[in-house]
Amino acid sequence: MIQIAIMGHGVVGSGVAEVLLKNAKNIARKAGEEIVVKRILDLREFPESPLADRFTKDFEEIVSDPDIRIVVETMGGLTPAYDYVRRCLLAGKNVVTSNKELVAARGDELLAIARERNLNFLFEASVGGGIPILRPLDQCLAANEVYEIAGILNGTTNFVLTKMIHEGMAFEDALALAQRLGYAERDPSADVDGHDACRKICILASLAFGRHVYPQQVHTVGIAGLTRADVQYAEAWGGVIKLIGQAHKRPDGRLDCFVEPMLLPRTSQLAEVNDVFNGILVRGDAIGDVVFYGRGAGKLPTASAVVADVIDEVKHLGARKYLFWEKGEEGYVADYREAESPLFLRLRGGDPTACREGLEKALGPCTPVTAVGAPADECGLVTPPVTQARLDQALRSLEGASVESRLRIADF
Amino acid sequence: MIQIAIMGHGVVGSGVAEVLLKNAKNIARKAGEEIVVKRILDLREFPESPLADRFTKDFEEIVSDPDIRIVVETMGGLTPAYDYVRRCLLAGKNVVTSNKELVAARGDELLAIARERNLNFLFEASVGGGIPILRPLDQCLAANEVYEIAGILNGTTNFVLTKMIHEGMAFEDALALAQRLGYAERDPSADVDGHDACRKICILASLAFGRHVYPQQVHTVGIAGLTRADVQYAEAWGGVIKLIGQAHKRPDGRLDCFVEPMLLPRTSQLAEVNDVFNGILVRGDAIGDVVFYGRGAGKLPTASAVVADVIDEVKHLGARKYLFWEKGEEGYVADYREAESPLFLRLRGGDPTACREGLEKALGPCTPVTAVGAPADECGLVTPPVTQARLDQALRSLEGASVESRLRIADF
Repeated sequence: MIQIAIMGHGVVGSGVAEVLLKNAKNIARKAGEEIVVKRILDLREFPESPLADRFTKDFEEIVSDPDIRIVVETMGGLTPAYDYVRRCLLAGKNVVTSNKELVAARGDELLAIARERNLNFLFEASVGGGIPILRPLDQCLAANEVYEIAGILNGTTNFVLTKMIHEGMAFEDALALAQRLGYAERDPSADVDGHDACRKICILASLAFGRHVYPQQVHTVGIAGLTRADVQYAEAWGGVIKLIGQAHKRPDGRLDCFVEPMLLPRTSQLAEVNDVFNGILVRGDAIGDVVFYGRGAGKLPTASAVVADVIDEVKHLGARKYLFWEKGEEGYVADYREAESPLFLRLRGGDPTACREGLEKALGPCTPVTAVGAPADECGLVTPPVTQARLDQALRSLEGASVESRLRIADF
Repeated sequence: MIQIAIMGHGVVGSGVAEVLLKNAKNIARKAGEEIVVKRILDLREFPESPLADRFTKDFEEIVSDPDIRIVVETMGGLTPAYDYVRRCLLAGKNVVTSNKELVAARGDELLAIARERNLNFLFEASVGGGIPILRPLDQCLAANEVYEIAGILNGTTNFVLTKMIHEGMAFEDALALAQRLGYAERDPSADVDGHDACRKICILASLAFGRHVYPQQVHTVGIAGLTRADVQYAEAWGGVIKLIGQAHKRPDGRLDCFVEPMLLPRTSQLAEVNDVFNGILVRGDAIGDVVFYGRGAGKLPTASAVVADVIDEVKHLGARKYLFWEKGEEGYVADYREAESPLFLRLRGGDPTACREGLEKALGPCTPVTAVGAPADECGLVTPPVTQARLDQALRSLEGASVESRLRIADF
């Protein structure tokens, strides 16, 4: 029998307790040991819970209990989660977390402590909810040179974009609907502004390329600036707009890594990932393109990923898994303005023909994109591969035209 | 340093040697040990190979060499692969194979020998080529009750169907093209008749539900009987035809398991899996739908899956992975005529209206499907959920009409 503690009894934490109780027999068979929840840390009381007698408000009761071998952290946020997780590892306990903010900010440090003490620190549920992605990625990496990862990593924004694309809704209406359905929080900024996707691409990039990428190194643009006009231009071009987190290894060893709304051709394997679903594309030299797809959030999918990690830790008590990455460093992620790709531009004001000619003179042949019902002084076009820096320079020479939107075009 | 042997230097086997050489440094880091190929078994000579001095034609040199801890089997077929793999396990060697025919026919027996001797027998590459699927499935299973698996498991037939659907090619022309491009063998029957997909769904079902499913228990229909007319009706209905291997756990504990061309709605997450790609859908109670997608065959993708297994075995020498299933039994897979689902029917001869009325009397309301340019005496319709047995009975009462095609409609 292995005794564990769960810190946090919110959506995910209560789901973990529920899955452990409901599938206890199956889980014991898989783990080779019965798994028993000895303590649940939460400031609230849950007298109706079948585990009501295990609750505590005192972290010390967990960290100082030698019977507790594994601690699950599902509190979220950095404070006090970071301190608690760190102290659990220092006290010789294995840790499982679903906390992407924690792993994206402090993963390198916590992995180093775990390694020193021959412990496991696992966090499959922090990316893609219930979709197994970190473990398969680690496996892909074993015999492959992975050079690119791109994903639809946030279900809320994908739901909003799907409604804008398929039902012609305005951004505000789609967001209000997501809130009504419980997909978006009352303060939706972590999702809408791309911060949640940013944390997840940090974790994926850190694992794939072996060095920590911190959220502040990643250029992050959300979806709040998108309009129906952009969606219509995307359609006219033959594609869809998706919020993508992407990491790409450059020949010089640095990474291009950003979160942005991008234009995907309709044939892209991520173009049909709709509603609250997530999809993650991994590209390796031997393996080609592999895509993982599923529900990226939700109580039970996420809880089942946490429980799978707990089982894995039970099976590897005293035998570390190899999941690890190095400390990050300044300059490891290249300036996003250096990344080259074709761009879609929507320009407004000035003479469309003159605009296009001006840009072509600077950048080479562009492809016009015409949206039905667009204003006469608006012009859509797709540039050849170009850096943002070079584009900015070219745009300065255009008289009277302003850039209404610019979207990177995906190479997947 | 860990010494291994590779049996078979065909497409996959030579790919394994290539990946091991090319990514040696990365692989050693991942495995925690250098991996050295000591012997390669093949009856042919490869004087140009960088490993030319390791070749042998004598299996005894491998099985009796105590330095060889891991043996990779990439010969394919049952003879002599089954005997060789069995003897390697009995001699205390861990085995990795890409041989789906072997695992589908004898997996239970080989897993039992491996378990008795505390060895690992791994075969990730036998399903989905380079797509990590067996290991993530095992992980999904850890905390989930998986109740259904459905997949596009054969790249050759998917290529042929894609050409029929998107380019209006006839079956024979699409197959000839696949042969010209090297996607189909000169004798394409293992692919076209569904046997390859059958072996793969056997492996997936055995792992997911814990008991061996043998190929002869699985009703298997290939794609040779499909015509352009079927494709056109599918389009009129709003879907596509895909060759699907499906396994579903019945409430009575038995399985529905078959390989058939099925009609998928265009919104299905497998509908857009085109060309030689594979896609596998896993449904669990907690996790919901998870899809794995990628190139299901090819030298390097498959080799990289084999090498990932080798690395895993190096990391688990003397510590068995839990991958296992029980011996199968008669009656475990239900008669395919007992599985209930809506069916698409194309009927020919007789009076279409009378046909439909006759079927509706027996089965309940049917939905007509009209294809442009269909002959006047042809009629397409979709039945309510029904077993094949009940449908056969209903069809007997129809005068003058013959069934040109019948396709199960997917519930995913």
